[in-house]
Amino acid sequence: MTTEKDRVLIFDTTLRDGEQSPGATMSHNEKLEIAELLDGMGVDIIEAGFPIASEGDFQAVSEIAGRSENAVICGLARAKIGDIDRCWEAVRHAERPRIHTFIGTSPLHRAIPDLTRDEMAERIHETVTHARNLCDNVQWSPMDATRTEWDYLTRVVEIAIKAGAGTINIPDTVGYTAPVESADLIRRLIAEVPGASDVVFATHCHNDLGMATANSLAAVEGGARQIECTINGLGERAGNTALEEVVMALKVRGDIMPYATGIDTTKITHISRRVATVSGFAVQPNKAIVGKNAFAHESGIHQDGMLKNAETFEIMRPEDVGLKGTDIVMGKHSGRAALRSKLQELGYEFADNQLNDLFVRYKALADRKKEVFEDDLIALARDQEAGEIHDRLQIKSLRVVCGTEGPQTADLVLSVDGRELRATAQGNGPVDATFAAVSELFPHGAKLQLYDVQAVTEGTDAQATVHVRLEEDGRIATGSAAEADTVVASAKAYVNALNRLLLRREKSDPDADVKRVRYKDSA
Amino acid sequence: MTTEKDRVLIFDTTLRDGEQSPGATMSHNEKLEIAELLDGMGVDIIEAGFPIASEGDFQAVSEIAGRSENAVICGLARAKIGDIDRCWEAVRHAERPRIHTFIGTSPLHRAIPDLTRDEMAERIHETVTHARNLCDNVQWSPMDATRTEWDYLTRVVEIAIKAGAGTINIPDTVGYTAPVESADLIRRLIAEVPGASDVVFATHCHNDLGMATANSLAAVEGGARQIECTINGLGERAGNTALEEVVMALKVRGDIMPYATGIDTTKITHISRRVATVSGFAVQPNKAIVGKNAFAHESGIHQDGMLKNAETFEIMRPEDVGLKGTDIVMGKHSGRAALRSKLQELGYEFADNQLNDLFVRYKALADRKKEVFEDDLIALARDQEAGEIHDRLQIKSLRVVCGTEGPQTADLVLSVDGRELRATAQGNGPVDATFAAVSELFPHGAKLQLYDVQAVTEGTDAQATVHVRLEEDGRIATGSAAEADTVVASAKAYVNALNRLLLRREKSDPDADVKRVRYKDSA
Repeated sequence: MTTEKDRVLIFDTTLRDGEQSPGATMSHNEKLEIAELLDGMGVDIIEAGFPIASEGDFQAVSEIAGRSENAVICGLARAKIGDIDRCWEAVRHAERPRIHTFIGTSPLHRAIPDLTRDEMAERIHETVTHARNLCDNVQWSPMDATRTEWDYLTRVVEIAIKAGAGTINIPDTVGYTAPVESADLIRRLIAEVPGASDVVFATHCHNDLGMATANSLAAVEGGARQIECTINGLGERAGNTALEEVVMALKVRGDIMPYATGIDTTKITHISRRVATVSGFAVQPNKAIVGKNAFAHESGIHQDGMLKNAETFEIMRPEDVGLKGTDIVMGKHSGRAALRSKLQELGYEFADNQLNDLFVRYKALADRKKEVFEDDLIALARDQEAGEIHDRLQIKSLRVVCGTEGPQTADLVLSVDGRELRATAQGNGPVDATFAAVSELFPHGAKLQLYDVQAVTEGTDAQATVHVRLEEDGRIATGSAAEADTVVASAKAYVNALNRLLLRREKSDPDADVKRVRYKDSA
Repeated sequence: MTTEKDRVLIFDTTLRDGEQSPGATMSHNEKLEIAELLDGMGVDIIEAGFPIASEGDFQAVSEIAGRSENAVICGLARAKIGDIDRCWEAVRHAERPRIHTFIGTSPLHRAIPDLTRDEMAERIHETVTHARNLCDNVQWSPMDATRTEWDYLTRVVEIAIKAGAGTINIPDTVGYTAPVESADLIRRLIAEVPGASDVVFATHCHNDLGMATANSLAAVEGGARQIECTINGLGERAGNTALEEVVMALKVRGDIMPYATGIDTTKITHISRRVATVSGFAVQPNKAIVGKNAFAHESGIHQDGMLKNAETFEIMRPEDVGLKGTDIVMGKHSGRAALRSKLQELGYEFADNQLNDLFVRYKALADRKKEVFEDDLIALARDQEAGEIHDRLQIKSLRVVCGTEGPQTADLVLSVDGRELRATAQGNGPVDATFAAVSELFPHGAKLQLYDVQAVTEGTDAQATVHVRLEEDGRIATGSAAEADTVVASAKAYVNALNRLLLRREKSDPDADVKRVRYKDSA
């Protein structure tokens, strides 16, 4: 029992609360990939989505449930029978499913469905009981718990426990709690609510004042044994608690916080980079644990070769979070087997024909560049993955003239469902001209919501990764591409996003229409 | 006396500890600008640099000291007479100068200069006394305080107080402290060190585990009355405590933390953006307070028009941190006066001839773009400022051909000290070709360390801001430019950086050579 107590469960909600942040929409395949990485790194519970919110969410949760090997797969549901049934339909495919149902219990939130205290209490009893009849593993959250009257909070928590919830999550929905309050709240609930010792209390913090990590750890001190978090602290506003921060803090400061997680910390850097890429939310250089500079003292050490520093910092080494050097990894004479093995090391697996395609592009890059870095390989691998989407539009050739004298023109050959079309268009800058040419050959109503360029590795002959986000009738599609030529990368990313949009049009995915519902009602 | 106690001093070290982060080197003028903004927003103490470290640092500290209107101006010095004298020479120009001297007191750090406990105690007495003889206002820091033996820590703190230090700063040099420890350390020092009640205790935290903000606030609970911090949490590794987070937490949670700062919080957003630009360290979208999404719930509110949300979040409004909407601010028919007034609102002042130049560029932009956003104006204003450096190299014209068919070529006319030179060069992508053309016309040994593109506002016809960092014989120079054409912006940013490098060559600024010393020895 004692060792059991010392284990803190990691509940990752990158795919639900993280994916909910404006602009972070992930594709179906990206969600599956992230879920697989979370499962592989030892996350205890993966909140995979909000099944009632959209057909897309439902499909993603179902498929993740069917594929998960170790983690409990959880779906979110409002305090409504229909939500809970739909959630169960999705998570039941998992070896270990969980239903997470919630309702806002503060006066402000009770006013929305216009329920009295007693009516809401009855609703909580009904819905948790219903969930428990479907699934052994039920989690319940009183949203805006920190601003719910104390007597009412203890009353509803008790009801949820009696109705069969095995996990009680206490969300700091607005992100304003301080660590002392966070510890105290959990401690008092455990002390005062009958039956509290039979369930796991969870903490769910937001980072509006920069204290999500400290608040989560304080809640653990107070008795919580489940931390809800996201990779890179992704999430609405200032985001959720960052998984990498709480996990590394517990690991590094085991002396004062004797709690273990099941996370393989060496997988942190890789999943952080993948989440940054698929969400389009970059990580700042001075971000704790996963920022580019987080271990920059290392270069300092190497520069001055001082033993003192090596000792000073050895309680958290770059290797602990899976950070590898950015040394030259391959030369232009490296073969196919070396490429495959290096890609495997970086976490990518390709079938033979895909590897062949990639190898051709790798050779072309190695010919042009003096040095090929890991980041270049990752960019190539991502581009290869992106290319696996069925492409109705393909760039055949592009020639752009730009500079100070204007007008900027793009001469484009685009294949549309196999037919090659040509156009020349002008624009305000080379990228604008290129996009205008695409739109001329394939007229569409999509609006460009985001255009972002990231130079991969140092130097201008390195690859640039371009991210594009398009919106059409509420549907959102993202595309990305990596090329040494930024303009070509922009064209490919734009066309990539259009291809995804076409796929969505075909499926007529209702995602976007319910986006507002999710926004409004979720914890 | 009671009200005095409730005031927490804000000590900003963006220009010292922040500027020390690898790659964040700021120019002399940028330092002066940031110091002016810090002074104007109510920062109590500005740590302006480390005068002994370089001639550049000395000049910056001296000039900031001479210009400051309200803030105490502080310089850093190791526990050496020469350091302290040099520091005094720089800060003495201030209305209210401070000398901040430090030494590593943990066993690990005592071993470096190979001092016994008694010898180091004697050194501390001597150096603080020396500083106090020069300056009324002396701050002392025991570096690596958290790993110094308790009996020795209390002994040296007492010595520093007796020798006349008015502020004792307790740095968490390695960033591993938890809030409970942070509060406890300060509380015990105040309780046990004779004379502690006569001085101000300060807290200096690093964010390696994501807890710098919570640790700083906990230290205040423990009795600290000075928080050391930086804008955007800039700093080595995962950075320092973020000024905006501690200040807003104290403001928003005055109910449980009854302490006041002198900060005008409405100036936070502007200085955050300026520091991000001049340091080249972008802020991630989900950064607390100053991230692009930090107030993204606002759009949620507007979308669903729910009063509940407005109430929920009204304790921290975007206006509180000076965040304005990104509405269309000006049209193509706006005049010079409107432009001047809008620029003033955004924090920019230009002389008439500069405004005329800017107005021409504004008109050109307004003609091309349907909508002109605040961010576009800020980009224009920055570019105008950057152009005020004496330019030995100037782009006269540029024409680039790029695309899938290669080779990419750039045809460039560059003015070098007034002579117009022309070259055509090929490269791997349009930017690489352009840089090759510049290098052909103006051969140099500078290495490109960083190339970064940020699209300003949404859409491809918006302006792109390009940042370039060059390194030559240890000297670092940065350049940036904003243009609708990314390739032209890249060319201008590159040439801008080269112009700065030339300026540094002329001054033969020894900055870079001592960079390593600073890295090694500072708190």
